[in-house]
Amino acid sequence: MSDRPTTPLLDKVQSPADLKQFSDAELVRLAHELREETISAVSETGGHLGAGLGVVELTVALHAIFDSPRDKIIWDVSHQCYPHKILTGRRDRIRTLRTEGGLSGFTKRSESPYDCFGAGHSSTSISAALGFAVARDLGGSCDTGHGDAIAVIGDGSMSAGMAFEAMNNAGHLGKRMIVILNDNDMSIAPPTGALSSYLSRLYAEAPFQDFKAAAKGAVSLLPEPFREGAKRAKEMLKGMTVGGTLFEELGFSYLGPIDGHDLDQLLPVLRTVRQRATGPILIHALTQKGKGYHHAENSPDRGHARAKFDVVTGKQKKAPSNAPSYTKVFADALLQEAAEDPQICAVTAAMPDGTGLDLFADRYPSRCFDVGIAEQHGVTFSAGLAAGGMKPFCAMYSTFLQRGYDQVVHDVAIQRLPVRFAIDRAGLVGADGATHAGSYDIAFMSNLPGMVVMAAADEAELKHMVATAAAYDDGPIAFRYPRGEGEGVTMPDRGEVLQIGKGRIVQEGARVAILSFGTRLGESLKAAESLRARGITPTVADARFAKPLDRELILQLAADHEALITIEEGAVGGFGSLVAQLLSDEGVFDHGLRFRSMVLPDTFIDHASPRAMYDSAAMNAEHIEAKVLSVLGVASLNKQA
Amino acid sequence: MSDRPTTPLLDKVQSPADLKQFSDAELVRLAHELREETISAVSETGGHLGAGLGVVELTVALHAIFDSPRDKIIWDVSHQCYPHKILTGRRDRIRTLRTEGGLSGFTKRSESPYDCFGAGHSSTSISAALGFAVARDLGGSCDTGHGDAIAVIGDGSMSAGMAFEAMNNAGHLGKRMIVILNDNDMSIAPPTGALSSYLSRLYAEAPFQDFKAAAKGAVSLLPEPFREGAKRAKEMLKGMTVGGTLFEELGFSYLGPIDGHDLDQLLPVLRTVRQRATGPILIHALTQKGKGYHHAENSPDRGHARAKFDVVTGKQKKAPSNAPSYTKVFADALLQEAAEDPQICAVTAAMPDGTGLDLFADRYPSRCFDVGIAEQHGVTFSAGLAAGGMKPFCAMYSTFLQRGYDQVVHDVAIQRLPVRFAIDRAGLVGADGATHAGSYDIAFMSNLPGMVVMAAADEAELKHMVATAAAYDDGPIAFRYPRGEGEGVTMPDRGEVLQIGKGRIVQEGARVAILSFGTRLGESLKAAESLRARGITPTVADARFAKPLDRELILQLAADHEALITIEEGAVGGFGSLVAQLLSDEGVFDHGLRFRSMVLPDTFIDHASPRAMYDSAAMNAEHIEAKVLSVLGVASLNKQA
Repeated sequence: MSDRPTTPLLDKVQSPADLKQFSDAELVRLAHELREETISAVSETGGHLGAGLGVVELTVALHAIFDSPRDKIIWDVSHQCYPHKILTGRRDRIRTLRTEGGLSGFTKRSESPYDCFGAGHSSTSISAALGFAVARDLGGSCDTGHGDAIAVIGDGSMSAGMAFEAMNNAGHLGKRMIVILNDNDMSIAPPTGALSSYLSRLYAEAPFQDFKAAAKGAVSLLPEPFREGAKRAKEMLKGMTVGGTLFEELGFSYLGPIDGHDLDQLLPVLRTVRQRATGPILIHALTQKGKGYHHAENSPDRGHARAKFDVVTGKQKKAPSNAPSYTKVFADALLQEAAEDPQICAVTAAMPDGTGLDLFADRYPSRCFDVGIAEQHGVTFSAGLAAGGMKPFCAMYSTFLQRGYDQVVHDVAIQRLPVRFAIDRAGLVGADGATHAGSYDIAFMSNLPGMVVMAAADEAELKHMVATAAAYDDGPIAFRYPRGEGEGVTMPDRGEVLQIGKGRIVQEGARVAILSFGTRLGESLKAAESLRARGITPTVADARFAKPLDRELILQLAADHEALITIEEGAVGGFGSLVAQLLSDEGVFDHGLRFRSMVLPDTFIDHASPRAMYDSAAMNAEHIEAKVLSVLGVASLNKQA
Repeated sequence: MSDRPTTPLLDKVQSPADLKQFSDAELVRLAHELREETISAVSETGGHLGAGLGVVELTVALHAIFDSPRDKIIWDVSHQCYPHKILTGRRDRIRTLRTEGGLSGFTKRSESPYDCFGAGHSSTSISAALGFAVARDLGGSCDTGHGDAIAVIGDGSMSAGMAFEAMNNAGHLGKRMIVILNDNDMSIAPPTGALSSYLSRLYAEAPFQDFKAAAKGAVSLLPEPFREGAKRAKEMLKGMTVGGTLFEELGFSYLGPIDGHDLDQLLPVLRTVRQRATGPILIHALTQKGKGYHHAENSPDRGHARAKFDVVTGKQKKAPSNAPSYTKVFADALLQEAAEDPQICAVTAAMPDGTGLDLFADRYPSRCFDVGIAEQHGVTFSAGLAAGGMKPFCAMYSTFLQRGYDQVVHDVAIQRLPVRFAIDRAGLVGADGATHAGSYDIAFMSNLPGMVVMAAADEAELKHMVATAAAYDDGPIAFRYPRGEGEGVTMPDRGEVLQIGKGRIVQEGARVAILSFGTRLGESLKAAESLRARGITPTVADARFAKPLDRELILQLAADHEALITIEEGAVGGFGSLVAQLLSDEGVFDHGLRFRSMVLPDTFIDHASPRAMYDSAAMNAEHIEAKVLSVLGVASLNKQA
């Protein structure tokens, strides 16, 4: 606690209105304090550090010039919102970030009126801002009133199709609204000299040509130390010119680029825009992810997501892991398969690290494709690869695969193309909370004709499933696995090709059968162990496949036991529902079966540790045990006793 | 039959290879014959006429210059593929288009090797073409071999985010591939004089400026008769310049605009591109929807989709309808609600006619938003409107709502925003076939926490549900209804606000209860009528809500009957699965219940009449009757007897 920064100005801020008292010079000092406070807080909690540090000045400027919550500031993805939370009455809870019961790591409408639109996934902010702008002009009744609508969106998010769709529509409607392009893919100082002339030409028709020429010149003038950054700078400048013309042609006034860390630029620009804007405006601000904390600035990912760390050394305080992560197991298994089959290739949508495909890209750069934040394209591109005779592994998080759902149906499943879906972060994911939960993929994949859907019970099973997917070429196939570390089981040298649609009995028992789909198998075995003390020895089985179902196994389990319990890390409508459909179709319920399907509850579960989240979902060993006891009509132990 | 056009050249074409024998002049005549044949065929079958007529010359040119199926021609949406089908060995079946057992109205991989990638939804072609191009370069094994990958995409499809994502990725990868922008939003002749200079500057860096100036001048030179088309022309020209620069900045060589009906332009351009292209190229062709058939050219939608018609008069041979369409009922009901509530507004994604919102746009232009082919944006824009205090009705076809699924989860459901989803074309849709089936919305909406999901059993129910959605402001709510005409029931003057989560008993009976969700209610009542002759009087109920379920009703039906059958026009994982979950949770199965859930089968059902499709889905009255008999253990009538 004694290490906390000294923050005399920040201490005076209870709400954004308090920023109005400060001079521009004081706002600069306030920004410095806000940065220190952000670093200090994240050092205690862990979380997204780099993104927040990149928008400290922007956050100060927006709250100094605009009147939130009447003016709607919408943070795209919103992992950069920590400084915003500190300024909007949540400083006292900022050190609870991403912990159970604490502040969300994202904006969240239920948390604060200053979070007018929540996020977690990218590229939604312009659509939302347009909604607010239109609602304002149509007289929508909003508790916090109506003012300006301001979307703050990163350059990565802007590349997604959804952002393009929103720009296209916003430019067409011509309503006053503000988009701030927070362009942080920049390692060297930008040439921002053209700012003042840009400002004066805010509504001029074609301010782009001069800048383009200037920019081209600027690249050639780069000093020696920036040599290795030159290529990126050139792309950046090219990007800017695309930005400028594109946005103008789409009906936006384009203003920029400006230095997003320089309040002497930000404040007058925002003041001018606030006073003068009549239609949609895009402000192009160049920022640096991780700005102002050199351990972040100097790391390859600019301190994107951190565990708790020591502020002075920058060293992260991660607990050592005992087992490899599922992500790593997937990546290694895929490399092994790819070494023997040159038609195996991989597709990711802006998550090479998160999906482990960075390793694949290193080894097989020509066979690995990062399509950007573009899940729709990523899925159909994979379909095209499959139609062309490749064996694509399309690796996405469960929650992001939702963005490519129509393409899974329309381009992959209907055409029965052998795309392999590697679905990472399946089930509840922990600190990222409800927006990142992978709750629906079992349901939305398993009712597609011809789709094969697997879930790995442990990391060895995952390796088998990668091998199975590589070998299976008759149609689409998907396998899901959770975030985090494996169970620590012995790993086979090679993945084994599983028989499609066949599960396995893990432990023979009597009276009750627990049929698990995915990594609840471990909890199921724990529950079985505990039940043994009460003289109940459940049969425990690993379904492996939600589709096709292992009919024989399931009907046998139903025939041989008084009760059958399915469990899966997903919402209703998935594995358990398919089992219920089979059992009812076969008339098994006609004469009675104690059947229960344990699925995620019908609520969005707030961030906490995955274990705590599964606790509130009532899906841990103790809950399975209780379910067995209740279904068998045995009174459960009084927990208080 | 005697009315069929004389087609001496076309008669020589069994496959595209036969086009190689023709001179350029003969190809012009062939195109003329192909157009006549297309008009003649569609006059007999009905279908998408305008789009095909717009690409007759392009189809001839592509097949004359390239070598399909080795070269992959990918038609976006693919409703323009009839001329392509005629040239690729399917002329003998072209008069079976969109009929049961006949040719699909879209490209379909299983139908022909010349249909290398199927479609139905828009904006997928560039992603697919990129997949083929990459597969070619990586050595994918494709039965038809590997050549060029060519996407033909309309200007509307190009505006979707997915197409932008694909261009972005294709430009980055730099592989040889061809995108033909089939720009048909054009009512006047385009200024194409700059063609030859364009050709010579194919790989020049900035061919855009000259053209921009020329284009600007061209607008002002428009002759009087084109006065009313001038605004559109201006937008068009603006669009072109966006196109040019945008595509070039994205890494494409941009070539155009050329006259897509002039083979003297198309053939040399395609020859040049085929010989010289090294990277991605975009050819901008201006075409006219409905070209060459004046009844199409002169209709407002350019003959987009036709019933069977008389070639000479252009008059469509539609059977007179007895009941209003569900779409019209929705539109009228919404108008009625909107008249009394100024906060009601409407959002559609490029389907104002199809969803009936064209009527809303006429009456309340400021409250109606057509966002273009942009379902992702459309849903989140609706979320923003709701957050801003409006009452948005987001009207989309079930199959297209799949494109906005992540936004439904992430922006609407998690934030519990009161967006009203009007889900048209729910269930099987007929001639458009599997790509347009609305099979999954019950499942993918009903497992979202806080979502209310209704289905209308008839058109009066639909009116009630519109009123219910207008009145419900506590969170998101959805209602689904099918394509086509209503049941002909008496319509109430005003929709009645239904109690959330309450179904209704339609007919009291005994032994077996049929619980319908949606418009299978009519078939259920027919089945009940027929069963009465056998002394079985089923209880028939209309669930109205899949979420929240009417627990009381369902448990009562289960308690009072030997058997309970649910039926819905959707895949497994939806209403029936939720009912099964309830019944198992409540222990109803423990002591036996003859429960069956009738859902769409686990296959993609090919185009036919909706009734025939439901027949193959085994969901018509006779199938319900048979299900009742079998579940009660009564031998059913021998159909042959």
